[in-house]
Amino acid sequence: MRFLITNDDGVHADGLYALKKAIEHLGEVVVVAPERQRSGAGHAITLNEPLRLYETKLPDGTIAYGCSGTPADCVTLGTLEVMQGDVDLVISGINHGPNLGWDVHYSGTVSAALEAVMIGHPALAVSLSTFSTDTHWSTAAAITLKLVNWLIDNPIPPHTLLNVNVPNVPLADVKGISFTRQGPRQYVDRLEKRLDPSGKTYYWLSGTIADHQTADDTDVTAAADGRVSVTPLHLDLTDHALFSTLHKIII
Amino acid sequence: MRFLITNDDGVHADGLYALKKAIEHLGEVVVVAPERQRSGAGHAITLNEPLRLYETKLPDGTIAYGCSGTPADCVTLGTLEVMQGDVDLVISGINHGPNLGWDVHYSGTVSAALEAVMIGHPALAVSLSTFSTDTHWSTAAAITLKLVNWLIDNPIPPHTLLNVNVPNVPLADVKGISFTRQGPRQYVDRLEKRLDPSGKTYYWLSGTIADHQTADDTDVTAAADGRVSVTPLHLDLTDHALFSTLHKIII
Repeated sequence: MRFLITNDDGVHADGLYALKKAIEHLGEVVVVAPERQRSGAGHAITLNEPLRLYETKLPDGTIAYGCSGTPADCVTLGTLEVMQGDVDLVISGINHGPNLGWDVHYSGTVSAALEAVMIGHPALAVSLSTFSTDTHWSTAAAITLKLVNWLIDNPIPPHTLLNVNVPNVPLADVKGISFTRQGPRQYVDRLEKRLDPSGKTYYWLSGTIADHQTADDTDVTAAADGRVSVTPLHLDLTDHALFSTLHKIII
Repeated sequence: MRFLITNDDGVHADGLYALKKAIEHLGEVVVVAPERQRSGAGHAITLNEPLRLYETKLPDGTIAYGCSGTPADCVTLGTLEVMQGDVDLVISGINHGPNLGWDVHYSGTVSAALEAVMIGHPALAVSLSTFSTDTHWSTAAAITLKLVNWLIDNPIPPHTLLNVNVPNVPLADVKGISFTRQGPRQYVDRLEKRLDPSGKTYYWLSGTIADHQTADDTDVTAAADGRVSVTPLHLDLTDHALFSTLHKIII
């Protein structure tokens, strides 16, 4: 099998290396990831500047490519140029931090996987649900390997990816794996206002997550319960329920 | 009514000014838009740098705010800081270029409207379907005004926006307004490879749109037919059909 792996934390991130080591016995692993931290990149693509690929090395001495662009750009360059379209699975991660609920719109990790399915390749996005530096990468790596093996036997439909969030605990403490749907996610106190040394105002995006009442079958609830969430995502943002009530209206 | 308007083409773009002039008789219009061109920004947000707002003026002498961040950041700063949450409708546009099908994932215009509904405000994204400099802004402005008036009488559910694409023709030549669903959109020849003066390789994202067979009720078909497409979009990317087959599986 031929894998492309990427992320939004950058080509030298620990989570990406843990992912590479977890799957490399299954086939060939090509690494194309942003040359710098790109958290919050969403599905940005680089239209107004040219893109570059730079050869670098991972801790095991193997070659990886740093890319000047966004996570989505990495998937375009990785699949079409570096791998010349010969790709069996794209895996984005392992992200340092959760990608749950509406946050997937902000996520470079998930957007890289969306770009892969847009191009036509199956994809996984994997995140470790912690911002702490005390990280259980091995748990997320083991869960990813399990899901890759499951996907080999159970391919999902085209233009669909699996968004996986793994609790930051030892593998033995994971409380199961649940297929989930996307829950809500909103922030409170979203802006922090400060003054610079010359007295001018600037702002940081910040905030805490609002307390949502969500159903048991959402990714948000699975994460809160200590379960792995596996959410099938696709490219269609249409609100079909609303569309079905609107589409015969003449304005 | 209190409107926030934004875009991804920048605070001094013609399409934004056309939008402002079209709706200003309906109430108060606050403008917060990127200080520079941000096409392709997707739903990027600025996490690793502080954000700034700069006062500037529009051609009619009114004050607008340029923002150092992405279109989504503009909506956060515009609604929470500049307007202190007192917002009736957020309108993003008028974009110079279509935002159809899967392209909405790349779109700063649509992502700004998604950010608005995430925060809790109704939103419209409006695009003029041309990359030509021979632009019929007045057509898109008139359609936007019609839709805003329609929305006042027919509010849509929370966390849902309308993504509007307008043909670049005189208003009299528009072949109707259709509520649509999101169609497919893929590119061919996506990368253009070049050599810089020192012989090093670089790439441009480029490409032409693949020829998709799509149903009559998609945005892609409406645009091809010369109709205005109005697509209800929401924040949920879950593939519910797949979820319903997966969610009782134990891995």
